[in-house]
Amino acid sequence: MKGLFQYNWQVRDEWFDWCLKQQSEEIEKKRSGGMESILKNLFHIVDVEVSWMYAILDKPDFTPAFSDYPSIQHIIRFSEAYRPEVESVVFHFSSTAEQKPVKPSWSEDTYTQGDILRHLIAHEIHHIGQISIWAREMNRIPVSASYVGRQQ
Amino acid sequence: MKGLFQYNWQVRDEWFDWCLKQQSEEIEKKRSGGMESILKNLFHIVDVEVSWMYAILDKPDFTPAFSDYPSIQHIIRFSEAYRPEVESVVFHFSSTAEQKPVKPSWSEDTYTQGDILRHLIAHEIHHIGQISIWAREMNRIPVSASYVGRQQ
Repeated sequence: MKGLFQYNWQVRDEWFDWCLKQQSEEIEKKRSGGMESILKNLFHIVDVEVSWMYAILDKPDFTPAFSDYPSIQHIIRFSEAYRPEVESVVFHFSSTAEQKPVKPSWSEDTYTQGDILRHLIAHEIHHIGQISIWAREMNRIPVSASYVGRQQ
Repeated sequence: MKGLFQYNWQVRDEWFDWCLKQQSEEIEKKRSGGMESILKNLFHIVDVEVSWMYAILDKPDFTPAFSDYPSIQHIIRFSEAYRPEVESVVFHFSSTAEQKPVKPSWSEDTYTQGDILRHLIAHEIHHIGQISIWAREMNRIPVSASYVGRQQ
């Protein structure tokens, strides 16, 4: 579990660096599918991760608006600001936590902590895959998505 | 680990069903990024999964050509034919297997079985995310990628 979170954070940070080298109109441009722009996909990844982690930590729900994070610099700071709390969940995850029930305020359903962490892993990889298509539309080389063979 | 493989197989089968309802020209159409078509992405997902699993099982490398699997029906049969061997690795995975070294014939490097399985999980979700963008380009609703809340 921890390995896939660390992979996602590394790939996310590489996309942040990639975005810093692009024209802002290109990363803000409305596109088909996903959250409809590169910036909005990255914002959504961080937003969803923080929301579920706050549910696990039993902290009040957090509903940030994209309009409060309108640039890549804002989204990078958003991601970095909550990383310690997110890491506290991931690094303390255990077989006991696996089955622990969590009831998010925005849902009628209860989920296990294990299912929430697997949901977050899949959620981020899915939206990053979408960004890789948009990078090719821009005639840019996307960040590598390979799990094996990456620099740690 | 097992949960994310089962999620991927379920999502993959839903995309197979989705493809069966589309015009073949649309799922064969050359697109930007990924493996450059919906069919080629799906073929690639199965091909890469089988190749790594065969390396784990110490079976001779398997290098199928896309031209041998030119339709969605061929790719469905390809996926189904190898599922039992793939499942035999996933369902027998344990903390002992985690660190077991695997040397694929196509690589100079050795990988742990745990890293290979995490690579396969991320690889499939990534390429499925790409297909979801192409579905929207076709004005079609993509298969849900949510891990939580899906029918088992």
